[in-house]
Amino acid sequence: GGQRWSSSKVSSTQANQTISNKQLLYTTDPLTPGSIFFLPHGTRIFNKLIHFMKNQQQKYGFQEVITPLIYKTKLWEMSGHWENYKDDMFKVVGHDLSKEEEIHEHSHEHNDNSEGLHDYALKPMNCPGHCLIFSKFDRSYKELPVRFSDFSSLHRNEASGALSGLTRVRRFHQDDGHIFCEAHQINEEITNTLNLIKDTYKVFGIGENDIEFFLSTRPEDKFIGDVKDWDHAESELTAVLDKTAGNDKWSIREGDGAFYGPKIDILLKDAFNKKHQVGTIQLDFQLPQRFDLSYKSQSGNNDKRPIMVHRAVFGSLERFFAILLDHYQGKWPFWLNPRQAVIIPVNESHQEAAKALQKQLQGDIMSEQNEVSPMTGYNFYVDVDDRWESIGSRTRDAISKGYSYILTIGDKDISSQTVAIRSRDDRKITSMSAEEIYQKFIDLERNYL
Amino acid sequence: GGQRWSSSKVSSTQANQTISNKQLLYTTDPLTPGSIFFLPHGTRIFNKLIHFMKNQQQKYGFQEVITPLIYKTKLWEMSGHWENYKDDMFKVVGHDLSKEEEIHEHSHEHNDNSEGLHDYALKPMNCPGHCLIFSKFDRSYKELPVRFSDFSSLHRNEASGALSGLTRVRRFHQDDGHIFCEAHQINEEITNTLNLIKDTYKVFGIGENDIEFFLSTRPEDKFIGDVKDWDHAESELTAVLDKTAGNDKWSIREGDGAFYGPKIDILLKDAFNKKHQVGTIQLDFQLPQRFDLSYKSQSGNNDKRPIMVHRAVFGSLERFFAILLDHYQGKWPFWLNPRQAVIIPVNESHQEAAKALQKQLQGDIMSEQNEVSPMTGYNFYVDVDDRWESIGSRTRDAISKGYSYILTIGDKDISSQTVAIRSRDDRKITSMSAEEIYQKFIDLERNYL
Ligand SMILES: [Zn+2]
Ligand SMILES: [Zn+2]
Repeated sequence: GGQRWSSSKVSSTQANQTISNKQLLYTTDPLTPGSIFFLPHGTRIFNKLIHFMKNQQQKYGFQEVITPLIYKTKLWEMSGHWENYKDDMFKVVGHDLSKEEEIHEHSHEHNDNSEGLHDYALKPMNCPGHCLIFSKFDRSYKELPVRFSDFSSLHRNEASGALSGLTRVRRFHQDDGHIFCEAHQINEEITNTLNLIKDTYKVFGIGENDIEFFLSTRPEDKFIGDVKDWDHAESELTAVLDKTAGNDKWSIREGDGAFYGPKIDILLKDAFNKKHQVGTIQLDFQLPQRFDLSYKSQSGNNDKRPIMVHRAVFGSLERFFAILLDHYQGKWPFWLNPRQAVIIPVNESHQEAAKALQKQLQGDIMSEQNEVSPMTGYNFYVDVDDRWESIGSRTRDAISKGYSYILTIGDKDISSQTVAIRSRDDRKITSMSAEEIYQKFIDLERNYL
Repeated sequence: GGQRWSSSKVSSTQANQTISNKQLLYTTDPLTPGSIFFLPHGTRIFNKLIHFMKNQQQKYGFQEVITPLIYKTKLWEMSGHWENYKDDMFKVVGHDLSKEEEIHEHSHEHNDNSEGLHDYALKPMNCPGHCLIFSKFDRSYKELPVRFSDFSSLHRNEASGALSGLTRVRRFHQDDGHIFCEAHQINEEITNTLNLIKDTYKVFGIGENDIEFFLSTRPEDKFIGDVKDWDHAESELTAVLDKTAGNDKWSIREGDGAFYGPKIDILLKDAFNKKHQVGTIQLDFQLPQRFDLSYKSQSGNNDKRPIMVHRAVFGSLERFFAILLDHYQGKWPFWLNPRQAVIIPVNESHQEAAKALQKQLQGDIMSEQNEVSPMTGYNFYVDVDDRWESIGSRTRDAISKGYSYILTIGDKDISSQTVAIRSRDDRKITSMSAEEIYQKFIDLERNYL
């Protein structure tokens, strides 16, 4: 790891927009301020990030769930969002209120608040939904930790004037996860999360020197739960940070924790020394109480309250996307590149060979041997540029569009059953067989290169 | 194909609920009526269905996009949803209206409708969003057909009394796709779509005899567009249905088309002869007009209007899930099964071997050799049941939970480096090596068995 961040000096939102315009990654529209439209090539990157994280989460024992987007006000009252977060939320209500059952039940009450009974809110966070799932089943200490992950759309009503590109949005996605565990499990869970965070950032060439860890501890006055529980949790977090981040690699923010639990923030420093909040690990003594969550302890009583941990590695996928745009400046590594290779046939007589090569390199999904494409295998994004301009001009265009590899096919290649391949970043041209190239692509993808 | 549908005679919603309760697939909550919570094992199935369809769509040249969920009322006025569909939609509005820019701009107007300026609606369909994307770029006849796919959450406000299980919901997902094309491309696009539909259903053991096709044609009085265009489109659809479904395999619903274009409905017949609407193919002369979509023709003028095709293969993923629950009665085929195999160590001395086998069969994601799990490869859902009850009782439990394969490991197996494997549906026990079993699993998955 440790590849250094880009040192280009353009403002990052502008620079992101410029790369996106060239590579057609995302767009926005005044008809829905703050919500991103991911275009086909941006969607490929977005989906790769999610796919990457789903695999890692599976490794760490997370179970993905798909949860609703709207919940009645009553849920947000239970969770405390109503009291503390209402102004950042969107209200949802049916245009035709007669479709709600309660209107009949309550129609004789002439209750001023009767309209409120049909109010929903668009979720700003997944936590209450995960608490509902936890609460629906009898839980035993044997099955803890229970770990849910969720990639739902979240909506937060940022002021319209503050919206900006991918970084200040109203709709976003998190690689969100919640762990329900016992106190003695905190150490291992946080260790795992911090290791996942370090391993993940390393995949993107973000070294430990570009990461900062902050521990926020119990506020002086206003906090819930026992001081004993706080002290235990904080000493665990301290030990874990010493072990995983290293003694001198993290700082303390004394008294800066939320009233419901201590937390660890993970920040990335970019080339401008600007810091971006990415991952978080938040311990929570409150929500399990508000949702009256419990599990059966070894003694057989169904009265133990789990501790809840909120954690995200990427944080907002949209913001992480923006950070990667800054970081790679459009030069996506092969595995993440929505344009992995382009094939340039020298002239029309090589077009058929180019199409055949494309099919082979694209992998199983596009193979005509399969009536129905298989679920798994190695598949790559390979285009053919048959515009019959000069090889030089098509090569320059391919580099400008960001293709990782440029393959040309002419008479000589066809007769020797090889392909002339060069990378985006190196003029050197090599002759390889189609099978060798496919294997090379597999190796690149498997090693996140 | 052609495996016959289940003939169990229980009501399907009840039966679905019973299977789900046993297999922990989904749940609901009065705090969000009509929105499904997919539990971890249901999410596995749901994600497999989406993954399956994304691969097929890639094969057919669709480009996935990720689009916003809320749009201002103005968009719904443009699309015609406001006029025709408003009562089935959810209104969205910020709790804190000062966050919307326009409130300042319009604050001196004392316009009665000023509140409406900040109204959004939760999308019931993806089409207007896709039209926006199409309209944002200069398009040429050379790039048509443009095909967008989208798996967004959709919300439609069904009456609360009508909600039922997975089939009548308020929040659902479609394998939605829109094709923007020229008139002469309709034939090939519809042929491809119908072939995809037939191939897809076959994967689930749904034969051609269980599928019905209906063509709905131009209404007598109220329609938009030229009669000539309608006639051309209808004759194309007729030819395509004759060719793909077969002359005698489809029916006509004369005059039953929407006012904006003819359509093909695809219905599945279940064991009760109950019909389920699944796929649709809807031609649309209207939306391209409402959004003033155009592309550059061969003559160089930017004045050609594309035809739009709405199409879905599964239709609602939630409803298709319910159909599959009916169809398989919880006996999921291996590739779709959230519980693909369970390993039963005979006693504690075999536990280590069981865990090692589990790691091997789970595939790359869970391998400890990878600090970071790779993106691709073959991965399976394999559990270990080490509850130390009798083999017979654990086997019965595994069958009742629906595991496709049950693997036992004892002294003999360890010394011969084999595993005793049986399927859910056959008592016959075979000895196989771990590597043979992994290969078998790969073959099953690749062949949708
Ligand atoms: Zn949370
Ligand atoms: Zn549509």
